[in-house]
Amino acid sequence: MSSGIYGQDLGLFTDLYELTMGQAFFSQGMLAPATFSLFIRAYPPNRGYLVSAGLEDVLDYLEALSFGPAALEYLDSTGIFTGDFLQYLAGLRFTGSVRAIPEGRLFFTDEPVLEVSGPMIEAQLAETFIINQINLQTLLATKAARCVWAAQGRPISDFSARRAQGTDAAMKMARSSYLAGFQSTSNVLAAQRYGIPPAGTMAHSFISSFISEEEAFQVYADTFPGRTILLLDTYDTMEGAEKAVRVAKNMEKQGHRLVAVRLDSGDFDSLSRQVRRMFDLAGLDHVKILASGGLDEFELETLVGAGAPIDLFGVGTKAGVSADAPWSDMAYKLVCYDGRPVMKLSEGKAYRPGAKQVFRLMDTGGMFSRDVIGTEDEEPVGGTRLLEEVMAGGSRTAPSPSLDEIRERFNQDFGRLDQRFKSLTNPPHYPVAASPSLERLTAKVQQSINVE
Amino acid sequence: MSSGIYGQDLGLFTDLYELTMGQAFFSQGMLAPATFSLFIRAYPPNRGYLVSAGLEDVLDYLEALSFGPAALEYLDSTGIFTGDFLQYLAGLRFTGSVRAIPEGRLFFTDEPVLEVSGPMIEAQLAETFIINQINLQTLLATKAARCVWAAQGRPISDFSARRAQGTDAAMKMARSSYLAGFQSTSNVLAAQRYGIPPAGTMAHSFISSFISEEEAFQVYADTFPGRTILLLDTYDTMEGAEKAVRVAKNMEKQGHRLVAVRLDSGDFDSLSRQVRRMFDLAGLDHVKILASGGLDEFELETLVGAGAPIDLFGVGTKAGVSADAPWSDMAYKLVCYDGRPVMKLSEGKAYRPGAKQVFRLMDTGGMFSRDVIGTEDEEPVGGTRLLEEVMAGGSRTAPSPSLDEIRERFNQDFGRLDQRFKSLTNPPHYPVAASPSLERLTAKVQQSINVE
Repeated sequence: MSSGIYGQDLGLFTDLYELTMGQAFFSQGMLAPATFSLFIRAYPPNRGYLVSAGLEDVLDYLEALSFGPAALEYLDSTGIFTGDFLQYLAGLRFTGSVRAIPEGRLFFTDEPVLEVSGPMIEAQLAETFIINQINLQTLLATKAARCVWAAQGRPISDFSARRAQGTDAAMKMARSSYLAGFQSTSNVLAAQRYGIPPAGTMAHSFISSFISEEEAFQVYADTFPGRTILLLDTYDTMEGAEKAVRVAKNMEKQGHRLVAVRLDSGDFDSLSRQVRRMFDLAGLDHVKILASGGLDEFELETLVGAGAPIDLFGVGTKAGVSADAPWSDMAYKLVCYDGRPVMKLSEGKAYRPGAKQVFRLMDTGGMFSRDVIGTEDEEPVGGTRLLEEVMAGGSRTAPSPSLDEIRERFNQDFGRLDQRFKSLTNPPHYPVAASPSLERLTAKVQQSINVE
Repeated sequence: MSSGIYGQDLGLFTDLYELTMGQAFFSQGMLAPATFSLFIRAYPPNRGYLVSAGLEDVLDYLEALSFGPAALEYLDSTGIFTGDFLQYLAGLRFTGSVRAIPEGRLFFTDEPVLEVSGPMIEAQLAETFIINQINLQTLLATKAARCVWAAQGRPISDFSARRAQGTDAAMKMARSSYLAGFQSTSNVLAAQRYGIPPAGTMAHSFISSFISEEEAFQVYADTFPGRTILLLDTYDTMEGAEKAVRVAKNMEKQGHRLVAVRLDSGDFDSLSRQVRRMFDLAGLDHVKILASGGLDEFELETLVGAGAPIDLFGVGTKAGVSADAPWSDMAYKLVCYDGRPVMKLSEGKAYRPGAKQVFRLMDTGGMFSRDVIGTEDEEPVGGTRLLEEVMAGGSRTAPSPSLDEIRERFNQDFGRLDQRFKSLTNPPHYPVAASPSLERLTAKVQQSINVE
């Protein structure tokens, strides 16, 4: 969890302006309730859906949010804040409520994935952490869902720990990718923390620390007779494959089976076919082929589409940083203050006012047909309400679902989305409209600003 | 620091194969010394130099590396490891040495930025964390250096906390960007931890929580008469500017000065000229203009080149995720085991064997002229040795430099790099060659593999 890592300094993980605005609100006595709405304005490139992820960390954060003595001392040292505001911060806890689209569910642009209501300063302060986590985890879960779709049922393991953008991102990629259908992770800490199956093979360094590649293979097979995957490309993939066949034959004599061989460079399509043929001819058709190295959803789609005989994929760097879409424009915007719905009109960044609900409508076959964004309290136009209350009075309203439950929720939602929205390139926009009631509210607030 | 955040489970932040290979080495009694070399094989797009960053976290990690009871219990529960190997892990500490190019220095592709020597298992285990941190921080420091270069002396503040890829990346962006010449950060925790000046303005939510934009401006100015920056674009930038002029005039009557106004959307070139003219005509030529929102080095170069009257920049999302180059191919490769130099020959991923040193040669004007990668122990071909011993016997050899010292080191190095290598698009490759001695070693090891 991200919230535990900065302990009593957690309150400081925020942008300075959250605190200076807090000081100004405090000085003015503006402590009325506010509602903020978190949403993505525009799809990152080639995205046609988004996967909700990161809520769990946000709830942990809100439950832990506080300013310890060192944090207050630092703030005091800046000379920016008054003594009575620092005293207020010393006693600050999050006392508000959160409504959110649960993790694992699909959502679309302009839809609030989360809304926070509470005293102005508390709700404002949380902006930086909330965007930081939900933006990242949503991007990673969405990227992973694209990979799973492209792999068409072949298991994928998360190999991204080393090239993810920092330790937190590495942990969140393991979790977000498992949530969206990956089978395992190489990241042992993530496997432990989140209960994800750990997976691994061997590195080139293992091979090159032996004088002979075949000896390295044999030693590994002797150490792990039930879980050996041999890496073929340290010197030459096809020569490596010949040695792996001999080791696999030795293993058979001992009553063991080589699990797989791993390709990590070169032309995966051609090499996988050659290696498959070699193993099949040797009567080793149970030995699987794993490919890793530079893979993303686009490569997976090409390899799977070409019929390359690859059984397992290890996906790392490009997925772990969501390389083709490393950021979104996710924003956390004030939509209501002291009972008054608000909005901004900035060029290209306008948004609708007021607390909201998202209604998901299905067709007769149980597939998603369209979403309607309405005001929070309006009568449903039909369909399911997506935002659920998950925190009230600063505490969770229910125990968190397990990661496997979230994974199953994703799996169900994903199956109900028509496949044209899953296209890896230029998918159409899923139909999302504002309800008449939200349209009226928007027009009214916009008019009141214009006549101000 | 990243190393403190996972406490006694820190050892688990590694890829599973590091531990399974460790088990195989342990079973074989292969505990001889190994040397691993960390380097980037190919420049990310449009990069002509790299900025060393992340060493401090790696040294913290190596000094803290251990497996606590919960970590060992988890490993035991996987059923993969033997009891005596787990006992070995229980006592494991990093006892080796580290040579590195200090933080803040420039380096180039194929040059080892860090080399770790120590007992095989210890040195191998550290791979995941070492790449994770130095890859990220080098990418971010390099991205920041490009922004600083493009801004041509105008101060830049790091606004990336909310859209960086996780909390760790946000902290590392604040540090890496300050190291490379940014002036401040909006991230309060990073400001506290790293001693970076904190900076901030106000958000749209502050404006929209008041019925009147001008009242919001006035309240903020009253709260912070000495440090007010007004955000103009909540409804309409030029109308916001008119109100800001009135508030600045009110401030003047109280003996205060408005520091700056902030543009956050729209056409920055045109808006900054209009706003500048309006403030100058009002006798407010001391009020600065800050621009933020979607900026990166390419935008900065365009705005500065066009002569837009922008005095300060806030740079966030695109820099904070190194959006045009969110990953590198940084690798940590075994180059020596038990006194025997090793290499791999994988297609497109070959590298040179043996522990190395990098020599930096200067021209008569004190500018960098070229680098030579040699073997660790060879006589200098001239120039400075870039890799310094920073850890021996598992402990730092000297106290760490301060962040301001590192920042000054970057500044000096950057001034010595010819500006053609700083071009934001398609810079030429800086001249880096292997020494004759390294060439001979490479040929010899390659031959020995081919005849194996």
